Formats: sequence, C-alpha cells, structure tokens
Amino acid sequence: MRALALLFSSMFFVMTAVAQSAQSADTSAIHQAIDQQQDAWNHGDLEAFMAGYWNSPDLTFFSGAHESNGWQAALDRYKKNYQSAGHEMGKLEFANLRIDMLGPEAAFVRGEFHLTMSDGKTPHGLFTLIVRKFPEGWKIVHDHSAGE
Amino acid sequence: MRALALLFSSMFFVMTAVAQSAQSADTSAIHQAIDQQQDAWNHGDLEAFMAGYWNSPDLTFFSGAHESNGWQAALDRYKKNYQSAGHEMGKLEFANLRIDMLGPEAAFVRGEFHLTMSDGKTPHGLFTLIVRKFPEGWKIVHDHSAGE
Repeated sequence: MRALALLFSSMFFVMTAVAQSAQSADTSAIHQAIDQQQDAWNHGDLEAFMAGYWNSPDLTFFSGAHESNGWQAALDRYKKNYQSAGHEMGKLEFANLRIDMLGPEAAFVRGEFHLTMSDGKTPHGLFTLIVRKFPEGWKIVHDHSAGE
Repeated sequence: MRALALLFSSMFFVMTAVAQSAQSADTSAIHQAIDQQQDAWNHGDLEAFMAGYWNSPDLTFFSGAHESNGWQAALDRYKKNYQSAGHEMGKLEFANLRIDMLGPEAAFVRGEFHLTMSDGKTPHGLFTLIVRKFPEGWKIVHDHSAGE
C-alpha cells in the first residue's frame, strides 16, 4: 500500500510539474509576443505589430465608448493615426505586464502603455487583452485600451 | 467494425453534446449573474451588486488610465460616487452582452453600460469583464470599463 501511495503521489507530482511547466512556457510565449509588438512599433513596422493580433473580422477593439472590429480595419486605422502626414508613431513602452492563464489555450493580460512623442507629449493608459492559442501561436482576440 | 465505428461516433456525439450543454449552462449562469447585478443596481443595493465580483484584494478595475484594486475599496467607491449626498445611482442597463468561454472555468464578457440619470444625462460606455468559476459561482475578477 505504501508503494502504491508513493507511486500515486509521484505521478501527481510529475503531472503538477508538467502542468506548471506548460503554463510557464505559455506565459513566456505570450510575454514574447507582446515584446515583439513593442519592438515592431518602435521599428515603425505596423504589419509586424499587427501580427500579434488574430487576423479575423471578429477581432475587437474597445477604446473609450467606441468599438471597432476586424484586423484589416485596425491596421488601416493605425496607419492613418500614426503614419500619415503630420503624425508620428513615437516610442512605445509596455509596462507592468501581468499575464494570467485562464485555461490551456487562453489567458488575459493587464498592462500599461506609454508613448513618448517628439514634442514631449506622453500619451499613456491601461489595457486588457484576451489572448488565445492558435496553431500559429498566441494571438490577441480582444483589446480594451483606454488612456489619457 | 461498423458496430465499433458506430459506437465511437455515438460516444463522440454524446461527449460533444455534453460539452456543449455544459458550455451553454455556463454561459447562462454568467448571463444570469450579470442580470442580477443590473437588478441589484436598480434596487439601490450596492452590496448585492458587488456580489457579482470576486471578494478579494486582487480584484482589479481599469477605468481610463486609472487602476484600482480590491473588493472592499470598490464597494466604498461605488457608495461614495453613487449613494452619498448629491449623488444618485440612476437606472442601469447592460446591452449587447457577448459571453465567450475561454475554458471550463473562465470566460470573458463584452458589453455596453447605459445609465439614465434624473437630470436626463446618460453616461454610457463599454466594458470587458474576466469571469472565473468559483465554488460559490461565477465572479468577475477583472473589470475594464470606459465611457463618456
């Protein structure tokens, strides 16, 4: 009986360790995807920035009291607001990232964005992201951002 | 062989039906919890309204560029902003609720809030909620709301 109990507790230990390791790997992968977005922004590469989002018409953005939908529309909006004449992208920094797994294939991310513009303005705010695991990696399926 | 294939496909059908039924029951339970919050607000019962939230110091609220934490602080804030002298709660309506399961014990909810005040003002906006299943039921663990 003691051998059986030992076997079961060892199995439990291994399974817990495997689950924790998978969770830690997922959290790292999500963190990396968000870091890549920050780098892409700071290299002026909006297509690479948008690679962090689910490429679907069902992708949603909430900003203030405004909702917008779809990957392509988001890319177009970012281009218009940050790359058209008289606009600049500024330097983007994400801070205080908190990633919480909600299951093996979903997580939510809380964090802050800080932009530094050449005129000294520093738009900043908070975001909540829902991320899901796809065959091609972790992608943001919903982005709620608001700031000042 | 055909009998075995039939057995497996029947098992698959039953398992899928069970999973879909569980998901549908979860979605209904989450919808009900949010409806209860709306009713509690409209009865002026902030304690009942707050019962929809995870009773923890780790509960988070994002509003604009401001973060606040904790169940008790949220209740105190609601009391100050909506029940103290010179304030009113107004009539609350949630609209366009979309509940997406993210695993057997987690979901996120997108929706709109509409307040109607006695002076005719109608503060409104969008919210993203993260809800998790606890032994005592579904509770909001993170609330990101913004509006006008």
